[in-house]
Amino acid sequence: MTGKHTAVSCANIAFVKYWGRKDDVLRLPLNSSIAMNLDHATTQTTVAFDPTLTADHVTIENTGTTPQAARRVSDHLDRIRARAGIETRARVVSRNSFPMGAGIASSASAFAALTAAACAAARITLSERELTILARQGSGSACRSIPAGFVEWHTADTSAESYAESIAPPEHWDLRDLITIVQTEHKKVGSTTGNALVHTSPFADARLAAAERALTIIREALLARDFATFGEETEQEALRMHAVAMTSRPSLLYWSPSTVRILQAVRAWRENGLPAYCTIDAGANGHVLCEGIHAAAVEAKLRALDGVQDVIANRPGPGTHVINTHLF
Amino acid sequence: MTGKHTAVSCANIAFVKYWGRKDDVLRLPLNSSIAMNLDHATTQTTVAFDPTLTADHVTIENTGTTPQAARRVSDHLDRIRARAGIETRARVVSRNSFPMGAGIASSASAFAALTAAACAAARITLSERELTILARQGSGSACRSIPAGFVEWHTADTSAESYAESIAPPEHWDLRDLITIVQTEHKKVGSTTGNALVHTSPFADARLAAAERALTIIREALLARDFATFGEETEQEALRMHAVAMTSRPSLLYWSPSTVRILQAVRAWRENGLPAYCTIDAGANGHVLCEGIHAAAVEAKLRALDGVQDVIANRPGPGTHVINTHLF
Repeated sequence: MTGKHTAVSCANIAFVKYWGRKDDVLRLPLNSSIAMNLDHATTQTTVAFDPTLTADHVTIENTGTTPQAARRVSDHLDRIRARAGIETRARVVSRNSFPMGAGIASSASAFAALTAAACAAARITLSERELTILARQGSGSACRSIPAGFVEWHTADTSAESYAESIAPPEHWDLRDLITIVQTEHKKVGSTTGNALVHTSPFADARLAAAERALTIIREALLARDFATFGEETEQEALRMHAVAMTSRPSLLYWSPSTVRILQAVRAWRENGLPAYCTIDAGANGHVLCEGIHAAAVEAKLRALDGVQDVIANRPGPGTHVINTHLF
Repeated sequence: MTGKHTAVSCANIAFVKYWGRKDDVLRLPLNSSIAMNLDHATTQTTVAFDPTLTADHVTIENTGTTPQAARRVSDHLDRIRARAGIETRARVVSRNSFPMGAGIASSASAFAALTAAACAAARITLSERELTILARQGSGSACRSIPAGFVEWHTADTSAESYAESIAPPEHWDLRDLITIVQTEHKKVGSTTGNALVHTSPFADARLAAAERALTIIREALLARDFATFGEETEQEALRMHAVAMTSRPSLLYWSPSTVRILQAVRAWRENGLPAYCTIDAGANGHVLCEGIHAAAVEAKLRALDGVQDVIANRPGPGTHVINTHLF
């Protein structure tokens, strides 16, 4: 036994999206991306390597443990075992702070926390950069949940160069992401499917070029705390990503009716002087972005919209960190 | 007085969309398009040139006559007066078969009927091709409402070459367009605005190339009555057009929550064996396409959806024709 080790990671919301890979095994992204950690959407994961186990034992609370999910965790533990030079099986328990079925993508926070907890349990010490490279191989966007605050993930042709780093600490800007959880009436489509279909859209190349331009615009606006420029380009970037998804073959429409209601409402509020913008991940929830001073007003308006089930208000979150409160 | 002359024109639904112009004055489109006349969405227009009038007198029933609309009608009458060599002012009354505020674009049927009625009243005899060229200058898509049934409008660099012609008569295929009229909660954006912003989308060029490919696919599928190929490409073409609109600057989101509900529902029905596809014009209504044998089932399901106010079922319609029932 190496003892129990636990890590906590935030989910993250991308302003420049990760959409499409140049290498599916290493999860090297087509374009660089920029995201913010979400302090109220976290995953806590405890790992212990146990010589008495003949197989990994994985429990994912809230969402339930599917064989596919357990397999993906074991595959990631294999990467860490290979790095540590061990073959011991592990016990893993993982818990999300956000409710099951809320449609919040948990793979980023889950694989970031798993990477950090398992490396601690396996007694291997990696730099933050090395941790991001390792987490990336479990789930691409997980690398962005390792560093603190506002994070850029670099596209590259080799694994060693495709890492994530903080471009500003959480306290740099009081930006809020109000995750607006909506009813969905239709079958969900995973982001992995969407990533694999990018090349079937006639807009794939143009979106990639636009994402490269957006990277500079959004990084500079973020560093300058220029909310209008930041919000405008972030909303456009989300629409570009969804335009690629919609025009893939088969067409992927992640939106529900309420997604459009949120988009239209945010635009109307903006015209009436309330500064807010919307981004959307590979799902139906709206992520409404505003500065702290407007957060209460925007949240109240969101909660009054038809089809909105809940709003989870987030500030910029910390990086992945090891804690002493274990789940078993 | 030249007497009263009245024409009736169908609105049309485009399978390959008209989106963007290479010449705003002559209304030369960026790409060729294919549409079907809609037999239950018509405009009837009566025109009489009257030497006692000092100005055109225009009445647009249902929607009310705005100064902008009256001006656009007078501008079009000027083209016809120039052709006829007259300066006489005209009385014009126009009536739509579809309800006011239904969000059905009436400019195609309105300018087609106006062109035919005014030419008859001005005693000028034009070929169908010449009528389409003249109607096009009033409202681009109006040229597609002149010939009967399924119609292709050719892009060209000169006015004389950008005409519309029937590629199959109405009886060629029992295709239905179920116009699904939805509640809209947001401000409407005109298609003229969208057309003018096309070049600001990063997807404009790729959409144009895709529309050129779609033209052949859709024409051939339509002529072969291959519904699956026809429907698949038509739905994708609509999504490409809306992707361009969404990613224009400023971004144009024509959809309402119910638009997405219809899209998702039609996809679910299709997966369950009911063949239907969706196209969307520059508005929030869904146009659900199916073959005659499935029309009753699809219409019943559409009427049961949240947010659907009415369904107007259309078969392939006739071309613009002169009638003897006048509006004044």
